[in-house]
Amino acid sequence: MKAPRRITYRDAGVDIDAKTQAINRVKDRVAHTLGSSAGPIGHFGGTWKLQSNGDQILVASADGVGTKLRLAFVLGGDAHAGMGRDIVNHCVNDILALGATPLFFLDYFATGKLDGDVVESVVGGIADSCKLNGMALLGGETAEMPDMYADGEYDLAGFIVGSVTEDRIVDGSRIEPGDIVIGIPSDGLHTNGYSLARKIYDLTGEAGHDLPILNQPLAGSDDTLGEALVRGHRSYLPVVMPLLERGLVRGMAHITGGGLIDNLPRTLPSSVIAVLDPSTWQSLPIFDDMVARALIDERERYHALNMGIGFVLVVRADDAATVLDEIDDAVIIGKIAPRQSDDAPAVQGLYS
Amino acid sequence: MKAPRRITYRDAGVDIDAKTQAINRVKDRVAHTLGSSAGPIGHFGGTWKLQSNGDQILVASADGVGTKLRLAFVLGGDAHAGMGRDIVNHCVNDILALGATPLFFLDYFATGKLDGDVVESVVGGIADSCKLNGMALLGGETAEMPDMYADGEYDLAGFIVGSVTEDRIVDGSRIEPGDIVIGIPSDGLHTNGYSLARKIYDLTGEAGHDLPILNQPLAGSDDTLGEALVRGHRSYLPVVMPLLERGLVRGMAHITGGGLIDNLPRTLPSSVIAVLDPSTWQSLPIFDDMVARALIDERERYHALNMGIGFVLVVRADDAATVLDEIDDAVIIGKIAPRQSDDAPAVQGLYS
Repeated sequence: MKAPRRITYRDAGVDIDAKTQAINRVKDRVAHTLGSSAGPIGHFGGTWKLQSNGDQILVASADGVGTKLRLAFVLGGDAHAGMGRDIVNHCVNDILALGATPLFFLDYFATGKLDGDVVESVVGGIADSCKLNGMALLGGETAEMPDMYADGEYDLAGFIVGSVTEDRIVDGSRIEPGDIVIGIPSDGLHTNGYSLARKIYDLTGEAGHDLPILNQPLAGSDDTLGEALVRGHRSYLPVVMPLLERGLVRGMAHITGGGLIDNLPRTLPSSVIAVLDPSTWQSLPIFDDMVARALIDERERYHALNMGIGFVLVVRADDAATVLDEIDDAVIIGKIAPRQSDDAPAVQGLYS
Repeated sequence: MKAPRRITYRDAGVDIDAKTQAINRVKDRVAHTLGSSAGPIGHFGGTWKLQSNGDQILVASADGVGTKLRLAFVLGGDAHAGMGRDIVNHCVNDILALGATPLFFLDYFATGKLDGDVVESVVGGIADSCKLNGMALLGGETAEMPDMYADGEYDLAGFIVGSVTEDRIVDGSRIEPGDIVIGIPSDGLHTNGYSLARKIYDLTGEAGHDLPILNQPLAGSDDTLGEALVRGHRSYLPVVMPLLERGLVRGMAHITGGGLIDNLPRTLPSSVIAVLDPSTWQSLPIFDDMVARALIDERERYHALNMGIGFVLVVRADDAATVLDEIDDAVIIGKIAPRQSDDAPAVQGLYS
């Protein structure tokens, strides 16, 4: 046995009190998200009192921000709060795709060395976005893990629980040939395709190297490249929920990793396909620039990127005009057709 | 603009199809966790049909495994499945501390480059442990993030939702002076104190450096140091739930980061303190060894480590004998006393 040396947990790189202090800085903003259904904070779990309702379905999802985080590490400032807003909106959209209204959220924030300003910014962004989406930030884990994350870096994941009554769940099962596919624009890459973007623009994660690139103007846009890349993941809840309340939607897809190609089939019955026409919507300058720089082929671009469509609705042909009236920027991007053979791709028309 | 070069998402380090394949390898084990309340998998969120019950409280918690992961990176093999089991049991114990029965779980697994064997092992361990705890593995996120994690490394977090009827919630509010504090042993560090352990034993995360250290015998034990350190986080659900069903428990604490000092007060009303006597229970050889090697002072050891007590029950004095009869290895570790002043520590007797 080596000679004993006096050691504390702080010596080992973990400061339990610093963690408590960092969390205290956002306590009020978290408290503002809590409605009458949420119990007190600080116990071993967040509690949520269900309203009496026999036919409720809970809908839950977990997600991360991915390598978009590396942009925040370089850009700093409000970009950290943006990461918090992004993970909330990503999760909200996921359960919205089943018709669910958000109830509560928990976050997982892991870093090498806690930076109180960054925690406040990220968790503050989470709290504010929870409030905007009408849900409680019920808890979370803030983990300090020396040696796991480089200085100034962190990972961020979110967990959401929402609910929908059994008669209101939208799972795509009623979709049939002749239905119309409506796209709602994205505001950018949202939270997918950043490893590809970083490769295309040669972003290394070194501020000295990356900032001159990120400060360049983006072709066809008033944005710098950095502004376009860091743009937030929008929440589709405010525009889509009114349609759900009127029973106007048969299927929905949130276009995340895997793009239109992988995500739209998640709501389609196996008896149908979606035939899309990319000329019906405008891509965004950031996607045009990425495609031009890297010669990303057609299948690949609709697999790795949302290409300008962030959320998809499938509606009866008779309801399409009503839906387009309700959502300003929505466009018809395709239609549902019978599937002719089992091995036919479920999404067609995007690539040849 | 640079000359275009053809690029794919796989070139950028993200292989969407490999992710799908890795997840398919554990599909059956995940399916085995799903009972009749869970809906189909593969949609945008996991669904859970609540049983009709007007007064249900949902209890949710998020947690990570922390730097215990670095032991799995070095030890490999079943240690990865152990990380999966650990995060599930950690989360189960957290909501158990409020009296909740687990309903469903979601995981967040993030790595630099997906290794199908590791994903299968970790998520398989999660699925098996969910099954043992009677809950569904309802979903999760498997994130491939090039440049964020070193080769062979990953982070792992879990999210749990359980429920308890309103009349059965255990929040400590009925605890009063004269009540008895009962401890249930831990099996080791569980999932806290690993940054400290790694510092004490000079573990660097390099297999060539760490394995000879981890293979050394642990004083006072038949284990190697590695065996003792990687030992799993046990679930207290099977021994505690029968007591809860009989209404025998007034307050509970899961002893995680912050030790007895920070965790026991989370269930204590502000009018009382807990007076503990560490001579009433046996520490474990791993804690004795850590304390001896590093001269960890008394307050620090009960703040950074569980020191042999993994879960605490507060019960009426009249019920103590019954509870000790029911749980073989439980011991009385202290009692509840009135708080004499606002600035008195809520847990006393552990350090002078």
